[in-house]
Amino acid sequence: MITSTGNEKIKNVIKCVKQSKERKKQGVFIVEGVRMFSEIPKTYHVESFTTVKFYDNNRELFEGLKYELVSDNVMQALSDTKTPQGVLSVVKRFESDVIGQAIKDNAGNDRTEDAPLIIALENIQDPGNLGTIIRTAEGAGVTGIIMSNGTVDIYNPKVVRSTMGSIFRVPFTYTENLLGCIEKLNEHGYMTYSAHLQGKSFYDFDYRKPTVFVMGNEGNGLSDEICKVTNNKILIPMMGQVESLNVATASTVLMYEAMRQRYSSI
Amino acid sequence: MITSTGNEKIKNVIKCVKQSKERKKQGVFIVEGVRMFSEIPKTYHVESFTTVKFYDNNRELFEGLKYELVSDNVMQALSDTKTPQGVLSVVKRFESDVIGQAIKDNAGNDRTEDAPLIIALENIQDPGNLGTIIRTAEGAGVTGIIMSNGTVDIYNPKVVRSTMGSIFRVPFTYTENLLGCIEKLNEHGYMTYSAHLQGKSFYDFDYRKPTVFVMGNEGNGLSDEICKVTNNKILIPMMGQVESLNVATASTVLMYEAMRQRYSSI
Repeated sequence: MITSTGNEKIKNVIKCVKQSKERKKQGVFIVEGVRMFSEIPKTYHVESFTTVKFYDNNRELFEGLKYELVSDNVMQALSDTKTPQGVLSVVKRFESDVIGQAIKDNAGNDRTEDAPLIIALENIQDPGNLGTIIRTAEGAGVTGIIMSNGTVDIYNPKVVRSTMGSIFRVPFTYTENLLGCIEKLNEHGYMTYSAHLQGKSFYDFDYRKPTVFVMGNEGNGLSDEICKVTNNKILIPMMGQVESLNVATASTVLMYEAMRQRYSSI
Repeated sequence: MITSTGNEKIKNVIKCVKQSKERKKQGVFIVEGVRMFSEIPKTYHVESFTTVKFYDNNRELFEGLKYELVSDNVMQALSDTKTPQGVLSVVKRFESDVIGQAIKDNAGNDRTEDAPLIIALENIQDPGNLGTIIRTAEGAGVTGIIMSNGTVDIYNPKVVRSTMGSIFRVPFTYTENLLGCIEKLNEHGYMTYSAHLQGKSFYDFDYRKPTVFVMGNEGNGLSDEICKVTNNKILIPMMGQVESLNVATASTVLMYEAMRQRYSSI
């Protein structure tokens, strides 16, 4: 059992917990808590750290995984939270080829017949917003998420936590060229929609075709150049004196309207 | 101009910024930033504190209001944020008779013919969730919000901020007896819906009648006794392995489905 926070391995994990740069350099991210722990795909698992108490209560979860027992004070030093749940894991980073998969399936067939549903995010800044969008996206049956490089780090511990495990299941990718991605999806028959305050009511469109919803930054909305390349600008109607909705809220409304049109009989 | 944080008035406002108990005792809450400042109804405004720079750029906003000029260091001491916008106000608390107004209008006529839309919240804990629900509620045309006493303090600065001003426009009330409120609304012809994982798909109901959506606590969902008194349990369908949606997300889906049924021609 490791009992000292001076241990070299522990010192390195603490660095990864605290520093985005260090996580990136090592190609890993940190996952905390029992629920998230049980959802880590084995192929991405690097090493877990657990208190004796947690290990004793959850031995079956550690089968086939590399792990170290640590004392309570070491766990407290590792943890990003006030009351650690007793397990923290180092996990390999991964990204999917969201654009490639949006166009062809694994057998090389045209994918657009399944009408994929893609979310594209331009420079979303708030970790809670990004995490919530990923969680809701899984619930609404989203096929993949494309993020501009200016979007908050998906491996930020707050994003990871607020996805509630969906980070392991919803394919995502970052891109330097969000505009190029949208143009490519246009070319392959996708309907691309900018969420925009000068758009037409979103209720007036058919989302049962291959669909991309493009959502903009919290403060500034979508950039003009991105808006210009999408097929349509859509607005979510708002009553009262509300000038805009939170970006996670707006994404929810759009994703669940697509779900309604695709799966509800009403 | 007040230049010392030792000033008695400033010391008192700092207490109100920091302590929920003190705000409650004095019957006030604190509102920060230019956008929120411009939305404070004059009847609730007690006193504002402003830097010279902010005052010079926004003189017209102070017309008819009591205010004090303060130095930058005093504003920094008052502020709950790292980069204060230069204005902070003490505002009187207010609550509406949401239940009364859900039943009769001001002229004493039966209100249910307008099909009010009410949100009832049981013990919501996260300030960001409550703020987002209030902001979205205004956008979706919600008539009023009822909160159990165990719900987070709506006058918490983080809630106030995340409503983006909707706190001044959406009628709300706290209640000791959420169950009694729901029973009363049942008696007056409302359809009351619990958001519940064992419910029927929410797409299968008609929300153009007087409607109450009852939403539960983040960790535990709705209590059994509240579920029992509602007319229907409704479930938001989820794909993938998502076990539940964030409560603000779930509220958004329900409120915007009601809005679609009420106002969209599709």
